Amino acid sequence: MKSKKSDSKIDNVRHSLAHLLAMAVLEMDNKAKLAIGPTIENGFYYDFQFSNGFKLTKEDLPKLEKKIKYYIKQDIKFKHFEMSPYDAREKFKNQPYKLELIDKIVDYGEKLSFYQSRDFIDLCGGEHITSTKEINQNAFKLTSIAGAYWRGDEKNKMLTRIYGVAFEDKAELDEYMKIQEEAEKRDHRKLGKELELFTFSDEVGAGLPLWLPKGTIIRDELEKLAKETEKKSGYQYIVTPHITKKKLYEISGHIPYFNEDLYSPIDIEGEEYYLKPMNCPHTHMIYKSKTRSYRELPLRLAEYGTVYRFERSGTLHGLMRARGFCQNDAHIYAQPEKAVEEFINVLKMHKYYYNILGIKDWYVALGIRDKGNINNKYHGDNKMWEEAEKLTKLALDESGIKYVIKEGSAAHYGPKADVIIKSIIRKEYALGTNQLDLYMPRRFNLVYTDKDGKEKMPYIIHRAPLGSHERMVGFLIEHFAGAFPLWLSPVQVKILPIADAHKDYAKEIFERLKTNNIRVELDDNNETLGKKIRQGKIEKVPYMLVIGDKEIADKKITVESRDKKDFGSQNIETFIKKLKKDITNRTL
Amino acid sequence: MKSKKSDSKIDNVRHSLAHLLAMAVLEMDNKAKLAIGPTIENGFYYDFQFSNGFKLTKEDLPKLEKKIKYYIKQDIKFKHFEMSPYDAREKFKNQPYKLELIDKIVDYGEKLSFYQSRDFIDLCGGEHITSTKEINQNAFKLTSIAGAYWRGDEKNKMLTRIYGVAFEDKAELDEYMKIQEEAEKRDHRKLGKELELFTFSDEVGAGLPLWLPKGTIIRDELEKLAKETEKKSGYQYIVTPHITKKKLYEISGHIPYFNEDLYSPIDIEGEEYYLKPMNCPHTHMIYKSKTRSYRELPLRLAEYGTVYRFERSGTLHGLMRARGFCQNDAHIYAQPEKAVEEFINVLKMHKYYYNILGIKDWYVALGIRDKGNINNKYHGDNKMWEEAEKLTKLALDESGIKYVIKEGSAAHYGPKADVIIKSIIRKEYALGTNQLDLYMPRRFNLVYTDKDGKEKMPYIIHRAPLGSHERMVGFLIEHFAGAFPLWLSPVQVKILPIADAHKDYAKEIFERLKTNNIRVELDDNNETLGKKIRQGKIEKVPYMLVIGDKEIADKKITVESRDKKDFGSQNIETFIKKLKKDITNRTL
Repeated sequence: MKSKKSDSKIDNVRHSLAHLLAMAVLEMDNKAKLAIGPTIENGFYYDFQFSNGFKLTKEDLPKLEKKIKYYIKQDIKFKHFEMSPYDAREKFKNQPYKLELIDKIVDYGEKLSFYQSRDFIDLCGGEHITSTKEINQNAFKLTSIAGAYWRGDEKNKMLTRIYGVAFEDKAELDEYMKIQEEAEKRDHRKLGKELELFTFSDEVGAGLPLWLPKGTIIRDELEKLAKETEKKSGYQYIVTPHITKKKLYEISGHIPYFNEDLYSPIDIEGEEYYLKPMNCPHTHMIYKSKTRSYRELPLRLAEYGTVYRFERSGTLHGLMRARGFCQNDAHIYAQPEKAVEEFINVLKMHKYYYNILGIKDWYVALGIRDKGNINNKYHGDNKMWEEAEKLTKLALDESGIKYVIKEGSAAHYGPKADVIIKSIIRKEYALGTNQLDLYMPRRFNLVYTDKDGKEKMPYIIHRAPLGSHERMVGFLIEHFAGAFPLWLSPVQVKILPIADAHKDYAKEIFERLKTNNIRVELDDNNETLGKKIRQGKIEKVPYMLVIGDKEIADKKITVESRDKKDFGSQNIETFIKKLKKDITNRTL
Repeated sequence: MKSKKSDSKIDNVRHSLAHLLAMAVLEMDNKAKLAIGPTIENGFYYDFQFSNGFKLTKEDLPKLEKKIKYYIKQDIKFKHFEMSPYDAREKFKNQPYKLELIDKIVDYGEKLSFYQSRDFIDLCGGEHITSTKEINQNAFKLTSIAGAYWRGDEKNKMLTRIYGVAFEDKAELDEYMKIQEEAEKRDHRKLGKELELFTFSDEVGAGLPLWLPKGTIIRDELEKLAKETEKKSGYQYIVTPHITKKKLYEISGHIPYFNEDLYSPIDIEGEEYYLKPMNCPHTHMIYKSKTRSYRELPLRLAEYGTVYRFERSGTLHGLMRARGFCQNDAHIYAQPEKAVEEFINVLKMHKYYYNILGIKDWYVALGIRDKGNINNKYHGDNKMWEEAEKLTKLALDESGIKYVIKEGSAAHYGPKADVIIKSIIRKEYALGTNQLDLYMPRRFNLVYTDKDGKEKMPYIIHRAPLGSHERMVGFLIEHFAGAFPLWLSPVQVKILPIADAHKDYAKEIFERLKTNNIRVELDDNNETLGKKIRQGKIEKVPYMLVIGDKEIADKKITVESRDKKDFGSQNIETFIKKLKKDITNRTL
């Protein structure tokens, strides 16, 4: 159990519960090797390596819970003390993972801190409570059990991790469990598979999504929205390659500042090339490809560009954290005196998109310099920093968007305004970042000739309001629980003929919708209507059209809608008109 | 001078002219080192390393030509003989490049063949004429001079290459020179720069185009055409990553069969990943991502996917031969009995596209096995080969498309039908390849459940009728000499107000066209009308609208069209209507 010191009472409870969990496990498998048991958001976990043949499953968790509740009632005390490295190594000589941790702590020059309850001693840097009596036994729960590699590294041994949560009172726990249940139902990895939106393949590699036809439709619709909006706002499109000479990243400073995000280089005729981790340097090269005049500014160069950034396999998470992703990227080169106005327009574009997508809960985290650490992490031009921070705040204030300041979260080349969106299940995701960049023009020597005939440097705005396709679609899956609004739905209408005799008319309706560019499927399987409707509901199709004798006789359709608003018998023309209106307006 | 033996008289003339060129150069720089002087299409070249301080420019070529004509008149004889390696090395001891060639020829176990004219002896595997009298002195020309790396390798010394052409008679030479002149004017690299379609950057790397906004519009229009056409034909879209585990290419057999096209691997957590050289294996993994029924077939999975293939820097040629390119790719998985029908539909789609693009001169080169070499290069299932070749021919015959059979040009996994298009300047380009593939389903274990409940393997059709954006746009630039038809033109209309007083009305017209989705630019620079029109012509804009007093008074526009058909004074609505019709119909 190792974590940062904390004064929070509930955090101490969580540390202590991890400790009690280890005690309980040892009662069942006294030869278990203990690895690590930190607190996490809302709770804690503990990693174990069980004895040969011993196994725990989800079904065993209530048993462990009962044991822990028993300890709680016993009023067990926690005693804190420190040990010398020698004593600690002696004490844990049969616990190889603890020995590794001890070595690491000693290497860092930190003290070895321990807690004892009865005769069980565990290594723990966090603070414990004094007695188990301080734990509300109705406000904790062991939630799940899973495999986890030691140190998160695939090459290490797979351990068993037991997760728990703990709160101040039962109401909080209940609320949490309710959200968790909803979160599980909405998990984008689960829904992505069920709805056939994307897949992963061992042969292709972890973190590299393969977009299936239905998922590709959602990407394409988002891209269409972006291009439509951006074209109206004077953006122009470019396409740049996915690999590039090392030289380019040395110019940008991403080597060395961004080294850990880069994949290993590719050798081409003795020269090192890198997969591109961002589109900026390429866009700057396009800016530089000709002499620029103030008449061309603001020059807004956009690219839905796929970038590749290294992520440890242990941190990958479906579409939300992938190794390759396609960004809604653009760079705006503006005259300095016009930069704030441009930035405000960019922020307005965020609002516009999020309104369309029904994302209401979002804010900006403005990362500025950590003033105590200026020379280490950031470029050294103080005046430039001040100007960039001032202008960014000015734009944010003007925009009326809620923002919080995070000292120390700036990029090495300037402040960044990260957009944080919150999903219905209360998860926060950093969707994209906006930057007012005064620094890169200098590194790339980007200039324009101003009205007065003088050569000047533009300011650059980096922006990606729709983030990446990967993270945005992952988010939207959870946001809509897979029930996408009509304009985003991969299949907008399903036609369900009741019997063979109805297939011809069904086909006719199908063709009619298709001609009107509605994404339509005809379910002419020989199944019962009930089964067809159930299937359509699983697929979360917005509308199903039932075709039977009555519909053919009346030359009408019966509409079954996903949101339970039963449209009933309708004229096909009226229905198509309504669909087209909702698609064009991107109605939620 | 080294080349394959040939019986063609004109080829012998070309060999002999290269020989005479070397003689002529040695008269000007008697210490020049001679490298290599092979024949090429329509002519020959010779690479030299001149003495320190000696230089030749384009202006010197007539002098050399005159010298060669003088030799021709002299009736100089060519004497053929062979030498031992020892004698040859002694003879050429001051000619380091010749020594390298001698070593190579000896290594290959070939004889050392020489030709002598007067006292000049050159190494040459090709056949010469007997006397210079056989050369028509009016039918040859030295055409250009350029730098060339020894053995085409950037790391070697840069030599000077002199190019020449030679024909049977003067008429042929004149015709060739005319085409060359046209080719130079149409060179896509020159026009691509002038029209601001694409650029390259030393910092990004050779063979990696950066698409500028105007070039991106052309790509996007082609992509729109493809998606529109393919969607109507039942294609579905996917997106797959640009890097992949080695494993996938081992399954496909691209490792080892395609090794030389692969870039060096990227290491991710100890595993080798490659840049994808083709999209097929990824598409197969998507096919495999669920169980498939005959009801889903033919399954047509399309991706405009960017692939990366190694090309030596010396062979790169603008967009026509790049290191990364984006293919109009799709793979069709069909029941075997439906495969020919699908293949015919694919071929029809080629016709449809090429009609739209005005490409009239094209044919298919059908690569089949070289039967003398079966076990080396191709998979070993004879029955499968016969079936694949039979069905491919059947489809080609049915389609009515002209095709030639090329024995030995099959892929390792099956026959391939390469589409060859010819440009107006008589260059031939392989645009894309179609394959009826019976083999990959076996390697990937791709199956479907047929109507009879049995598990069967589909046949796959690989196709890319629009080739890659890179090669297609490069071709179209030369094809249209940069004057793209309206629907492909990056700027469709330019508005030219004559003076300041006309700018408001010009702006009004500009907005009106923009609202109608016409790509329009307003040239409100303070230049003369003449200069504005000249600029518009350089940019090859289809229509220019002149706005002056008369136009404002009449509430009309004056249309100046690129193709000289002066539209004169027009009503704006009529003009917009005509534009929209031509854009929708993709009128040439």
